[in-house]
Amino acid sequence: MQFHLNGFRPGDPSILEQIEPDGKSSEMSELPSEVDVLIVGCGPAGLTLAAQLAAFPNINTRIVDQKSGPLQMGQADGIACRTMEMFNAFGFVDRVTKEAYWVNETTFWKPADGQRENIVRGGRIQDTEDGLSEFPHVILNQARVHDFYLEVMRNSRRRLRPDYSRRLLDLQIDRLSSDNAASHPITVRLERTDDDHAGQVETVKARYVVGCDGARSTVRRSLGLTLEGDSANQAWGVMDVLATSNFPDIRLKAAIHSASEGSILIIPREGGYMVRFYIELDKLREDERIANRNITADQLVAAAQRILRPYTLLVKEIVWWSVYEIGQRLCDRFDDVTPKLLGKPAPRVFIVGDACHTHSPKAGQGMNVSMQDAFNLGWKLAAVLEGRSPPGLLHTYSAERQAIAKELIDFDREFARMFSARPKESQEEAVDSVDPAEFQNYFVKQGRFTAGTATRYARSAISGAGTYQHLAKGLTIGMRFHSAPVVRLADAKPLHLGHAFKADGRWRLIAFLGAEDPSYPNSGIRKLCSFLTESAESPLLRHTRTGADIDAVLDLRAVFQQDHRLLDVGTLPPLLLPQKGSYGLHDYEKAFCVDQRTGMNIFEMRGIDRDDGCIVLLRPDQYVAHILPIDSHGELAAFFDGFMLRQN
Amino acid sequence: MQFHLNGFRPGDPSILEQIEPDGKSSEMSELPSEVDVLIVGCGPAGLTLAAQLAAFPNINTRIVDQKSGPLQMGQADGIACRTMEMFNAFGFVDRVTKEAYWVNETTFWKPADGQRENIVRGGRIQDTEDGLSEFPHVILNQARVHDFYLEVMRNSRRRLRPDYSRRLLDLQIDRLSSDNAASHPITVRLERTDDDHAGQVETVKARYVVGCDGARSTVRRSLGLTLEGDSANQAWGVMDVLATSNFPDIRLKAAIHSASEGSILIIPREGGYMVRFYIELDKLREDERIANRNITADQLVAAAQRILRPYTLLVKEIVWWSVYEIGQRLCDRFDDVTPKLLGKPAPRVFIVGDACHTHSPKAGQGMNVSMQDAFNLGWKLAAVLEGRSPPGLLHTYSAERQAIAKELIDFDREFARMFSARPKESQEEAVDSVDPAEFQNYFVKQGRFTAGTATRYARSAISGAGTYQHLAKGLTIGMRFHSAPVVRLADAKPLHLGHAFKADGRWRLIAFLGAEDPSYPNSGIRKLCSFLTESAESPLLRHTRTGADIDAVLDLRAVFQQDHRLLDVGTLPPLLLPQKGSYGLHDYEKAFCVDQRTGMNIFEMRGIDRDDGCIVLLRPDQYVAHILPIDSHGELAAFFDGFMLRQN
Ligand SMILES: Cc1cc2nc3c(=O)[nH]c(=O)nc-3n(C[C@H](O)[C@H](O)[C@H](O)COP(=O)(O)OP(=O)(O)OC[C@H]3O[C@@H](n4cnc5c(N)ncnc54)[C@H](O)[C@@H]3O)c2cc1C
Ligand SMILES: Cc1cc2nc3c(=O)[nH]c(=O)nc-3n(C[C@H](O)[C@H](O)[C@H](O)COP(=O)(O)OP(=O)(O)OC[C@H]3O[C@@H](n4cnc5c(N)ncnc54)[C@H](O)[C@@H]3O)c2cc1C
Repeated sequence: MQFHLNGFRPGDPSILEQIEPDGKSSEMSELPSEVDVLIVGCGPAGLTLAAQLAAFPNINTRIVDQKSGPLQMGQADGIACRTMEMFNAFGFVDRVTKEAYWVNETTFWKPADGQRENIVRGGRIQDTEDGLSEFPHVILNQARVHDFYLEVMRNSRRRLRPDYSRRLLDLQIDRLSSDNAASHPITVRLERTDDDHAGQVETVKARYVVGCDGARSTVRRSLGLTLEGDSANQAWGVMDVLATSNFPDIRLKAAIHSASEGSILIIPREGGYMVRFYIELDKLREDERIANRNITADQLVAAAQRILRPYTLLVKEIVWWSVYEIGQRLCDRFDDVTPKLLGKPAPRVFIVGDACHTHSPKAGQGMNVSMQDAFNLGWKLAAVLEGRSPPGLLHTYSAERQAIAKELIDFDREFARMFSARPKESQEEAVDSVDPAEFQNYFVKQGRFTAGTATRYARSAISGAGTYQHLAKGLTIGMRFHSAPVVRLADAKPLHLGHAFKADGRWRLIAFLGAEDPSYPNSGIRKLCSFLTESAESPLLRHTRTGADIDAVLDLRAVFQQDHRLLDVGTLPPLLLPQKGSYGLHDYEKAFCVDQRTGMNIFEMRGIDRDDGCIVLLRPDQYVAHILPIDSHGELAAFFDGFMLRQN
Repeated sequence: MQFHLNGFRPGDPSILEQIEPDGKSSEMSELPSEVDVLIVGCGPAGLTLAAQLAAFPNINTRIVDQKSGPLQMGQADGIACRTMEMFNAFGFVDRVTKEAYWVNETTFWKPADGQRENIVRGGRIQDTEDGLSEFPHVILNQARVHDFYLEVMRNSRRRLRPDYSRRLLDLQIDRLSSDNAASHPITVRLERTDDDHAGQVETVKARYVVGCDGARSTVRRSLGLTLEGDSANQAWGVMDVLATSNFPDIRLKAAIHSASEGSILIIPREGGYMVRFYIELDKLREDERIANRNITADQLVAAAQRILRPYTLLVKEIVWWSVYEIGQRLCDRFDDVTPKLLGKPAPRVFIVGDACHTHSPKAGQGMNVSMQDAFNLGWKLAAVLEGRSPPGLLHTYSAERQAIAKELIDFDREFARMFSARPKESQEEAVDSVDPAEFQNYFVKQGRFTAGTATRYARSAISGAGTYQHLAKGLTIGMRFHSAPVVRLADAKPLHLGHAFKADGRWRLIAFLGAEDPSYPNSGIRKLCSFLTESAESPLLRHTRTGADIDAVLDLRAVFQQDHRLLDVGTLPPLLLPQKGSYGLHDYEKAFCVDQRTGMNIFEMRGIDRDDGCIVLLRPDQYVAHILPIDSHGELAAFFDGFMLRQN
């Protein structure tokens, strides 16, 4: 954490200094008539986006929800490793880590040979492969995830708080004025739903509107888009309970396939006592099935009891329960640029999360993918609104995220199918049955998908060609930056390099240095720094506004192979000890060395060329954008010129 | 974290359910006329004690301070490893870890050979020896430490908040009624100091009063005790600044001895920019010395600049500064049991922290030792007030902590002397000079002292004999439990065993099991559990009140050597899966296994007998109280009988 740059402030450093109340603060009870971004929906998608945009005090963001206040319980709970990495960038991963249940191992149960009415443990695996991420896969109430985001928003300089009890009625886009970036071409109508204002309609004009309004999205409908896919929803019951049981794996994630009573997935929950059951409803007995909406919690409990046989289950409190329908569906676009508008102005309205794709709860994707959508969109909106990038950048949101959603939905469909199929009894059986061992294998193989680390964006203006991929084999262009340990040069602190990168909308230029002495005037790092501080082509000079900190847009970091005790801070090029803020204080957190004590060598772990080094460019959402040789200054400049505006 | 035991509650689980407002809540603006414990002083000592007592909703604790509100800046900042372990027990170590500066390495600077007016780096060492603690040594504003404790208090069931603007005038102990444990023998007079109530005097009767009122303690004076020791205070200037410098170690802890301008200690501070300088004032030039109280911040800056030569220092903001006087002083008792009262009733009034011992700031002891004092006293007060132990237990506070304070003061005196002595130029020099290499050696050797892990309590009713010390060679009786990694059996979670032990006033019985199959009826763990659940001698049955959770007083845990995947939760003795709370839910967090994946074997790391195992008893403040063979049930019972009351 860095703070006190512009002077000491007492108190919690995560609570930023409030900007002067200038009528723009979100503590007002009325919505302003004009906003930069209006986010509809306070689910995980909307809150991720709001927390991201709250990092930009010049952007006037507001977020509304039809509900009267924050979520208290229920809904999703699985938090993938990649999401944890993102939570780290937002500053609350440690709180999640502490409070959540950790999914360490998963067990698989199946009918016992001979005594098929009883279940037996058929397999046990480590949940997440070693080294996939430095964070665990955890389970935490979606409501708590919301709380953490709400706190980030509340602590931001604008003290952003949701405006609850407002239902989006409709929106209209004025296509004529939407050429003009300064205009507010979208007119949104919201109905207030609290008792004091019931029925009142507010009209807000916005530059951008983002529909994070869930599976029944009104924004999606306003754009004339539809979720396509599986129409045959499969219903699952889900319940969070406090219960006693002699099932030995009640504190492990357990996938249970009974012979004839259906399947359940057990997800232990935070706090050590609560547990979630996902129960297949199709396999409920005929007399219970009737219609999903008539199912009672007692029936869910009874089904769980039958599936768990010979083990007991005594439910003491049903904390939350719901019947949740599986439908793998997807929109073909995630913005308002319908085919007839193609080639026309950049998008103005977006849909994010469940509004544009829905998943079964089995693979724990819904909440995670929704948040990653928002993380993808947030920095792009900020870059355009702050005049750092042209609006065309916004096309990449739908392009990138729609492709990912499609992949995930295909994966999820297969995963859910296998989960719901009856366990095979013999080789001769029907096609709709599945070998439990095969399910387990599939589960292992697809671990990277569920962990969220398999995402790979295709080549585009912000995702370079693979020409120099061989310089950092373990950091794949288009995939998330896979962090590794380093030691910070100035204070000898061991830390993960990736943890230095916060959700602040900045690009990272990581210079991994080859086998050179950085103090030589001709060293790669000195030449790179000279280029960045002196050349007329320097992306740093081109894209950073005069008066802003030198790293406000492009944040240069260097990783040296030397032992940190042998490298002198005093010999670093000035750009690696930049002077910032109102006092011109030095930032000492730009230079790192290989961690010699633990032997976890980042160059070896990520396949970085130890002779020549390389530059790795990271997007603000932590995806590897490009890899370049350390001296390819021209290509570096050209890459940023491809999607950033010149400022001076 | 464990929560939801008595039913689900939404929101932050660290905010406990408030007890019914029954006139006892501390949100009232007036002090009640009677309290169980009155704590005087909201420094680190008082707040540690208040946070500890806040864990007991039946105890009516209040804490007052003459100040009008919480500390904002300045004072101590060093947080030793042992203190971090305690913060972990209070639940906020992760926030400290995140926000603080980490002291990873320390450098030593001395006059350059030949050019003695310039300083050069003479040495560089790792600050804390490997494996000393799983937590780093860190630096954080004392005010933030206060904030974290205040949050623990505010989140407790009584919502304990300090009563500010109250100055202790005096206290009187009614010796006649103090035999009666139920009485409130102490009468305290407090003067209100806020504008609205200025001059008003409140009278409060208390069972116990704890003076955490700092070096000029009024409580100490009321008891007729004095701080004895060094009368020649040595003055040091201390300042927290935002500055630029080309001194390369400005982000490392650095001890600098200049040839003739004196010494400074540089302590980098949290946030990456702020830095603290401790500057020796005696060595200030004659014209600046005058009197300490006339020293200005500018003079401190000038002194630092001279000592740092040839490096530059440009101060941009002086955040806080003070002239801090070194005086190593100590009281001979830490309670009201003066010699003429010996053999008489147990103590009623205590002094804690700076009120009974003062240290130089150099070794960073003041705040740390004060908090450890309070942690030592807190659980004892709670045990007596809750009727679990006889008042005689309270004698151990002064006995234990006075001896430790004496050791630390002797250490500190030597440390400060070496720090202040002039650097030796040659072997022939005067006795008051010191070889910089010798200082560095001393620093390394004394690392365990400054880390707070060298504390060792002498034998007493709560600190057993060393008869069976050989069964766990690395867990020394009388010293703090040195944690090591394990895997929790029920959910396969890798964690530190010590982190399972919270500041909840409970004793731990850790059964480390030998090479046995725990499912055998004759296994040591089964026999131990039978004894604990069935025998009339069982300390668990004797000392736990009927109706309380079975682990409310003595918390049994077991550590097995088996691979956790091979041990079946279902075969555990019921006491290791106890049913608790209003629903009788199973607690799954009692049984652990050796961590096979990392190879960090707790038996090997702590020298525990792998054939026979042993029982390790931990006090609520995490000190090892006793080590016993697994089957010495009688000795186990006798030990607890020595200081606990039988309940049933
Ligand atoms: C009842 C329920 C149960 C679920 N159970 C599970 C589960 O067991 N496991 C699992 O993995 N996932 C579950 N999910 C799905 C998971 O919660 C979602 O995948 C995830 O929340 C998607 O996030 P989102 O932000 O895209 O949308 P949501 O979380 O759906 O958020 C949409 C928000 O928009 C608001 N909104 C909608 N329309 C309007 C409007 N017109 N005006 C204003 N506000 C509006 C809604 O009130 C809501 O707050 C469940 C979802 C629901 C609704
Ligand atoms: C000005 C100052 C500067 C310091 N600088 C350093 C430093 O640079 N480095 C370092 O290591 N240590 C420093 N210390 C010491 C360090 O802060 C203490 O060792 C540590 O705070 C001891 O904790 P404590 O709780 O025992 O006492 P304190 O922190 O002193 O707390 C005592 C509290 O009691 C209150 N109090 C006192 N008398 C009364 C009364 N009659 N009625 C009601 N309330 C009362 C006080 O207001 C105060 O809040 C400094 C202390 C002070 C006061």
